[in-house]
Amino acid sequence: MEKKELIVRENILGSNKKVAAEIRAELAGRGVLCVNLMSSPGAGKTSLLERISEKLAAGHPMAVIEGDVETERDAERIRAKGIPAWQIVTGGECHLEARMIGRLFGKLPDKLEFLFIENIGNLICPASFDLGEHLRCVLLSTPEGDDKVKKYPEAFLTSDCLLITKSDLLPYLSFDPESVKKEALELNPKLRIFVLSALRGQGLDDFIAFLIERRAELASVHA
Amino acid sequence: MEKKELIVRENILGSNKKVAAEIRAELAGRGVLCVNLMSSPGAGKTSLLERISEKLAAGHPMAVIEGDVETERDAERIRAKGIPAWQIVTGGECHLEARMIGRLFGKLPDKLEFLFIENIGNLICPASFDLGEHLRCVLLSTPEGDDKVKKYPEAFLTSDCLLITKSDLLPYLSFDPESVKKEALELNPKLRIFVLSALRGQGLDDFIAFLIERRAELASVHA
Repeated sequence: MEKKELIVRENILGSNKKVAAEIRAELAGRGVLCVNLMSSPGAGKTSLLERISEKLAAGHPMAVIEGDVETERDAERIRAKGIPAWQIVTGGECHLEARMIGRLFGKLPDKLEFLFIENIGNLICPASFDLGEHLRCVLLSTPEGDDKVKKYPEAFLTSDCLLITKSDLLPYLSFDPESVKKEALELNPKLRIFVLSALRGQGLDDFIAFLIERRAELASVHA
Repeated sequence: MEKKELIVRENILGSNKKVAAEIRAELAGRGVLCVNLMSSPGAGKTSLLERISEKLAAGHPMAVIEGDVETERDAERIRAKGIPAWQIVTGGECHLEARMIGRLFGKLPDKLEFLFIENIGNLICPASFDLGEHLRCVLLSTPEGDDKVKKYPEAFLTSDCLLITKSDLLPYLSFDPESVKKEALELNPKLRIFVLSALRGQGLDDFIAFLIERRAELASVHA
């Protein structure tokens, strides 16, 4: 990287970190667990949020911030489930930054337990940007292949959860979930790993129970 | 984007463009067709190159430059096919740049017809960087979903070919190839579209015939 580029990048990351810390503290104070979902394009982030909303939202108010390079499509899908959702269209930018989240704070409903952020579909750049989340989840879909942990380490290294998605396609692929779990835990031993199918429902109840537990912990600390 | 970041980005893109133009001219002079493959992680770039090498390399000498954030895995897979391959490990950078390609020029064999560059797995950032290719191909794998053209337009807008990969998975997905073709051609009417399966071989002969034809045109112009 050229020196000038490096300095600018450090400035951006530094100011991003400050804004992120403020967001994290404010949401914790309100008892809202913030979850940042990161993955390649098409790993199933929006489908997962649709399924989560069906099971979670009735008892636990949630909202969603969608990030995309172009189009409002994903926010529309979430709104169709009756969930408040806002779309950030970056127009070319490859990741979300904390200041983009901060700008939407005024819109959040008073009664809220979960704020999900669906990051831009990109397994590299979003990993460098703290959005003020309490829980970072990286999704790896089975058709992407079981060699991705070592090839794109930062997303796996900086996450709290690994969600292996599209498990319903396993019969048609050479993807080995055990090898992925092993490589991921070698890289990041604190990772919680869930194997999920948004289509068939596999693993969803466990993941949602985990989210509710984490949110209860956060709320009790800040009560 | 902050102003300072914008200026630095313009400088980088400007100097990248110059290096890319030199690469393109030199390769054309040698009769080498340079093909830049771009896609999300796991869309099947390396598998496609493995299959192409089996059908193309005997009569048409080829070499491969592999880009990855980490690991030498992909170059090893190509070398196992008897093809000269070099790995660029960017260590966090999310795209290849022309100067990285230029540094490998001394290693290219004298007798060469095709130079394939497998870009970093990222559907956003690589689209901004000309690598000196004569043919830019974007891959979209069927499990990524049929909504990606409008969500990640730059890669489709700047490409010469769209390769819809993993067609063998179509029976298990709700992916509609016709809708993708329609959206892609509306965005970029000059796109050549191929539907491919590296696993089952569908479409490979047509795509390889197209590559050979393009290379012959290039060589005849520069003869």
